[in-house]
Amino acid sequence: MNLNDTSQPANFAEFDLIDRIVGRLGESAAKDILIPPGDDAAAWALPDANNMVVASIDTMVEGIHWKSGSVATMLPQDIGWRSVAAAVSDLAAMGVSADILLLSVTVAEGTEFIDDLCDGIRDAALRFGSKIAGGDIVRGRETSISVTVIGSASATDKPLMRRDSASVGDVVAVTGFLGSSAGGLALIQRSDSNNELSSLIAAHRRPVASIEEGHLARSSGVLCAIDVSDGLMQDVGHIAQASHVDIEIVASEIPQDRELLAEFTAAEALDFALGGGEDYELVVAAPREIIDSLNEDSDLLFRPIGRVVEVENERPQVRVLDQEGISFIPNRVGWDHGDIHEPE
Amino acid sequence: MNLNDTSQPANFAEFDLIDRIVGRLGESAAKDILIPPGDDAAAWALPDANNMVVASIDTMVEGIHWKSGSVATMLPQDIGWRSVAAAVSDLAAMGVSADILLLSVTVAEGTEFIDDLCDGIRDAALRFGSKIAGGDIVRGRETSISVTVIGSASATDKPLMRRDSASVGDVVAVTGFLGSSAGGLALIQRSDSNNELSSLIAAHRRPVASIEEGHLARSSGVLCAIDVSDGLMQDVGHIAQASHVDIEIVASEIPQDRELLAEFTAAEALDFALGGGEDYELVVAAPREIIDSLNEDSDLLFRPIGRVVEVENERPQVRVLDQEGISFIPNRVGWDHGDIHEPE
Repeated sequence: MNLNDTSQPANFAEFDLIDRIVGRLGESAAKDILIPPGDDAAAWALPDANNMVVASIDTMVEGIHWKSGSVATMLPQDIGWRSVAAAVSDLAAMGVSADILLLSVTVAEGTEFIDDLCDGIRDAALRFGSKIAGGDIVRGRETSISVTVIGSASATDKPLMRRDSASVGDVVAVTGFLGSSAGGLALIQRSDSNNELSSLIAAHRRPVASIEEGHLARSSGVLCAIDVSDGLMQDVGHIAQASHVDIEIVASEIPQDRELLAEFTAAEALDFALGGGEDYELVVAAPREIIDSLNEDSDLLFRPIGRVVEVENERPQVRVLDQEGISFIPNRVGWDHGDIHEPE
Repeated sequence: MNLNDTSQPANFAEFDLIDRIVGRLGESAAKDILIPPGDDAAAWALPDANNMVVASIDTMVEGIHWKSGSVATMLPQDIGWRSVAAAVSDLAAMGVSADILLLSVTVAEGTEFIDDLCDGIRDAALRFGSKIAGGDIVRGRETSISVTVIGSASATDKPLMRRDSASVGDVVAVTGFLGSSAGGLALIQRSDSNNELSSLIAAHRRPVASIEEGHLARSSGVLCAIDVSDGLMQDVGHIAQASHVDIEIVASEIPQDRELLAEFTAAEALDFALGGGEDYELVVAAPREIIDSLNEDSDLLFRPIGRVVEVENERPQVRVLDQEGISFIPNRVGWDHGDIHEPE
């Protein structure tokens, strides 16, 4: 059943779930675009100056990205929210907003779950300034949700931020706190604590895509950025690899939530930051004067945590340094969200 | 793991499946766009005159859209092909090409399956003139594939074809044959026949999106079209509902493959056409002179099968007429591809 299709088959009296979903999405449904939900495809006009389309797709699967049932790590509303946040975050890391979302949902559960999922999707779409233009919903044995995000940009504006544009001498800086989402998940899984007021649990269930920070960085001339989805080591590793540089991170400079440091040991908190992922903060690499200018008006919005250096060995590397500047091997090196790796 | 991400984490020696997939996609990977696979998102420029984005998403799930194992209805290559064809067909029905694809794959199977799936995706993308700009692959218990298709159009060109623009007096016409895909599936499921040379089996496993026909119809001034994905009754019903008209289809005018009529009774063949779906042909509604002009150079490319009339009762209806013009109730009224309907 196509979510673009809001009409009922003429000869059927069945309740149409799509009407229900579009109704539930409320103001987050793209009703005022050229061709809104209700046809084979959606169509919308770009702002006059824009002639570049920027797009990405992101999928979350039950059992991999969340657990349901008696050990549920998220409510259906959280699943909807986080699916949108994670997808929007990929565009934020380019310095672009996600104007349009297309959803694909495979559901093993009933209407109540779908309603709650839609509520979370709607809330996140409204929060991040995105509109839902279409989608597809299919019955399956395993619940999953794919979110396609589509934005636009002008070729005459500042370049989109990429992974391959870090330069030796750049400062590496990060928004927000790292490790909070992984800490939140650990708290949820500790049966003794499931505090709704926990900022860590909120970070896990209701992450916020760093859209404004992405726009600010791009418009200030930052050329290199990535979002922290797989953990700092892996994500900074992507920059190192794509830019063919080494990157040194000073462990003690990584910003962490006060609650994380209260609930866990310093070593655990560092592991969460380096390997936990799903924080959806931005890591940027740029000359010091750009980072300084970004921080001029807002105190440490982009907190320096390291620097870009020449490749030391053959392969680009990320090194974590202690306070004496000695590099050490962290315990964890990134979570495997159902990713498929094959031995060489 | 993000298919946009082709780099290896700097500190890992694991074989990177994404490199393998992008390699496998060959010429169908969008290597020459502004930001090719390998970053948080992909970016591409629109043709100068274009300022409208047209997009849709379509999902296929194992057990619903195909069966695997000992009763397999499709090979992995077929699954890849048909996922792309079905998604591209939604844009064809608007009169637009799918320039860019984003894939999301959840796999329960191994590397060999993924390789074969990629081969089918590649072949279909090359056949339909689309390039793969990104994607996401996740391990799951149930295999599914979502394909996002993105095209563009100019506001100064002929309008996109929609469902809500059929007018009383229009002729309803269809491309190609109807019922072939359902007939092919029935043949596959009949253990006595699994003929690789069957045009019906090919129609089921390797359907062809009607892109050229869609462009031709739109450029000739056709305003109303839909692709036959759920079966003629349901899909024409969408037009009736959206345009608030009744539609009369003359059963004997529905074009059908000679093999279908040889393998099945006339009643079975009609059922396949009316309710089978997945033919990915186009149904258009337009004034007779436009249909005639479309058929001028190519004999019955758009074969008239019915007409658009005033709504007779309160609710728009699709009526099937026999050769005497008497309407009758067909046996089947559309397949339920895992669609979720609730009783009223």
